[in-house]
Amino acid sequence: MKPKSVKELLHSDKYLQEVTVNGWIRTFRSNRFIALNDGSTINNIQCVVDFENTEENILKRLTTGTAVEITGTLTESQGKGQNVEIQVTKIKVLGDSSPDEYPIQPKKHSLEFLREKAHLRIRTSTFSAVMRVRSVLSFAIHKYFQENGFYYVNTPIITGSDAEGAGEMFRVTTLNDKNPALTEEGKVDYSQDFFGKETNLTVSGQLEGETYAMGLGKIYTFGPTFRAENSNTSRHLAEFWMIEPEVAFLDLDGNMDLAEDFIKNVLKHVYDHCKDDLQFLEQRLIQEEKSKPQDQRSEMTLTEKIRFVLDNNFKRVSYTEAIEILKNSKPNKKKKFQYIIEEWGADLQSEHERFLVEKHFKCPVILFDYPAKIKAFYMRLNEDGKTVRAMDILFPGIGEIVGGSQREERYEVLKEKITAMGIDEKELWWYLDLRKFGTAVHSGFGLGFERLVQFTTGMTNIRDVIPYPRTPQNAEF
Amino acid sequence: MKPKSVKELLHSDKYLQEVTVNGWIRTFRSNRFIALNDGSTINNIQCVVDFENTEENILKRLTTGTAVEITGTLTESQGKGQNVEIQVTKIKVLGDSSPDEYPIQPKKHSLEFLREKAHLRIRTSTFSAVMRVRSVLSFAIHKYFQENGFYYVNTPIITGSDAEGAGEMFRVTTLNDKNPALTEEGKVDYSQDFFGKETNLTVSGQLEGETYAMGLGKIYTFGPTFRAENSNTSRHLAEFWMIEPEVAFLDLDGNMDLAEDFIKNVLKHVYDHCKDDLQFLEQRLIQEEKSKPQDQRSEMTLTEKIRFVLDNNFKRVSYTEAIEILKNSKPNKKKKFQYIIEEWGADLQSEHERFLVEKHFKCPVILFDYPAKIKAFYMRLNEDGKTVRAMDILFPGIGEIVGGSQREERYEVLKEKITAMGIDEKELWWYLDLRKFGTAVHSGFGLGFERLVQFTTGMTNIRDVIPYPRTPQNAEF
Repeated sequence: MKPKSVKELLHSDKYLQEVTVNGWIRTFRSNRFIALNDGSTINNIQCVVDFENTEENILKRLTTGTAVEITGTLTESQGKGQNVEIQVTKIKVLGDSSPDEYPIQPKKHSLEFLREKAHLRIRTSTFSAVMRVRSVLSFAIHKYFQENGFYYVNTPIITGSDAEGAGEMFRVTTLNDKNPALTEEGKVDYSQDFFGKETNLTVSGQLEGETYAMGLGKIYTFGPTFRAENSNTSRHLAEFWMIEPEVAFLDLDGNMDLAEDFIKNVLKHVYDHCKDDLQFLEQRLIQEEKSKPQDQRSEMTLTEKIRFVLDNNFKRVSYTEAIEILKNSKPNKKKKFQYIIEEWGADLQSEHERFLVEKHFKCPVILFDYPAKIKAFYMRLNEDGKTVRAMDILFPGIGEIVGGSQREERYEVLKEKITAMGIDEKELWWYLDLRKFGTAVHSGFGLGFERLVQFTTGMTNIRDVIPYPRTPQNAEF
Repeated sequence: MKPKSVKELLHSDKYLQEVTVNGWIRTFRSNRFIALNDGSTINNIQCVVDFENTEENILKRLTTGTAVEITGTLTESQGKGQNVEIQVTKIKVLGDSSPDEYPIQPKKHSLEFLREKAHLRIRTSTFSAVMRVRSVLSFAIHKYFQENGFYYVNTPIITGSDAEGAGEMFRVTTLNDKNPALTEEGKVDYSQDFFGKETNLTVSGQLEGETYAMGLGKIYTFGPTFRAENSNTSRHLAEFWMIEPEVAFLDLDGNMDLAEDFIKNVLKHVYDHCKDDLQFLEQRLIQEEKSKPQDQRSEMTLTEKIRFVLDNNFKRVSYTEAIEILKNSKPNKKKKFQYIIEEWGADLQSEHERFLVEKHFKCPVILFDYPAKIKAFYMRLNEDGKTVRAMDILFPGIGEIVGGSQREERYEVLKEKITAMGIDEKELWWYLDLRKFGTAVHSGFGLGFERLVQFTTGMTNIRDVIPYPRTPQNAEF
């Protein structure tokens, strides 16, 4: 008989049918009730063991974490919290799990403890819920773009271009680690390295993405990106996944429309398709928040935060306007901000972004037209000569979730900015070519995928929303 | 007025409507007919310019590669090969393209030439068709798995585990390139590197994928993998994308069923959704083959090859049986094979695989139960003690497209094999843990995504199916 998944069985109403199911024992209580899970859903199926007719040495082996194959009759459940259960007729132990050694016991483990057991933490309710939501989010992203005429592009991970300028990079090499080949001048001779030049891990696929948008029209990337920054915080990873759409013939207003529509669609998809997991994660967050002082607790539950994004129009505010609001705000005047806003040109911190979203506007906010000085070289210069067509989307709880811009499409202006930034224009000959041949207005944005997973699942540490986090001093597994 | 895409307009029958469209000029002939493309489809839309009422200096700028915004009336076309065309009322040049400098002219360019212009080649019909098919293939893969209860898992790209054993690796480091920190014994001191240990780029997500299958049940990965091998061939990339499903409670037979069903579904999706692009690529291949000697041409056209996979059951043959067939085959006896098959245990080459598929069985073939000696340590040992539960799927034209196995789930057997391979078991403590706690039969396979794109598009060089190929001595862009 073909085994069925726990999810299929829980949605079945074909009572009195004989069924087979494989899974791992979550708990076994009263020598009678197995809570069985196979990862297909957050919910366990209850399997009722006929303990009087089951061998003692089998019963002893039914401990948390043990893999079993169970055959029995699907029946309507008398217990509360479930519709169906299985009256077990046959049980086969596939793999034991010694209660003395297995670290994932049916009690509360700290997230820190589970990070040390990253190969086993997926067997807990919390991590399986997070990772199922992560998977559905991924699919929602692909679905949105594919249904809206975008093509998926795999930009290179190993890059020979060091002009992206988004952060510190990891070197990729096959040269001898202790005694690399040297040139006559005594420098490392990268012409003898694998690629014949110095190469690094990409920090962004945007520049290559632009080359494809200028041929395919509408594209998106979704792949890993890297930062070799020594940031040991709950918000940073050295390896994370990023989504970067890029659209030809689109200006900044259109870019804001796209980003808002995209985020709402993706969150709606997860809201509709992950009800059980979200409900579990909402309760988990409520429990976690109870350990915090009252004034640090979130004013919204997890699903309220998601609905907050779905139900509100994103408020569009220029950087200049935002600075005025912040300068005149209570926390600024009373010096409650860690960084006091004194004048136009200041870079905004997470505390300012959250103030705008959570206290002032009480809706998601899109800030646009930032000072050129605090933004990247490829953003389009406005006619005022001092601001660029950049936009950031700010969310409750996490601050910036999207950063984007209309790109500088004018050859001469771009070339000047590249030179002013001290970048060798020869490094970017191909990027400049886009402005030489059939240039056009185009725009795009970047969304850090793990930030979105954090927002959707309510996990406060970014290390808990990716299977094997890479951070300074940590590349275990 | 909101611009429409070329694809939308070509499918429209709302004649006499005023429309706006943006795109790049492919050709401009007779001072009258613009073939406009925006990447949304392989097909161009014809825009008819009223040259008598258009300024001379505008007409001069309408050259190949120029970006324009065109407004006009959608009309039924009188010309052949198209249903609709646009009677232009307004034309705005967005970005010029000097005919003397723009390398992508309306003539036949060699694929080698276009590889040097990887940032512009997406503007050709061939590459835009290949990349659209690649994008739709990606989506078909996600769709298949998500609709069949699999969860998408992002396994780490930077790995601290050097025991995967699938090939040479790239080192990832932030140590000083010329004078790295050294230990007292004079070795490179990786404890001072970013991750506090030596790290490399992953060659496979399988081992980490297994940890997730043993919690979520059914998972798949789809991400970049790397090989630092000095293979300068038309079949190898240093950076490529791989799909690796992994399923708990599944044996090798189930694994073969899954792989066959998966490939057929994905190809069917592309067959149904990329008709225009496939038709173009089929014609391209026919032209390309004409330059080959008659006996080296493929017996099947592109769509015939796809149908060949869709319409045939994959023939399942044991390695032992295949060796017998090959030993007694004509090319073996007449020494036409480059590598003569003499005895059981020989590794099969592409020529043997293609013989089995194209000449002997005339259908896709799954070989299984390979000698343990030529396969990886993690494959399940059969009762005969000399073969393992491995399987390879062989396709016409390209040979191996899938490699998979049932994994060794027995702790003691796996430990022994790890030791026999000379791998330090401490490196794989977490992988061994899976066999200690709730172990179960499980299986999976790997599919090189670019090989699948090659098969589907008929491109003979793997460098032409990924935007920016990474190969020895080449990491441009």
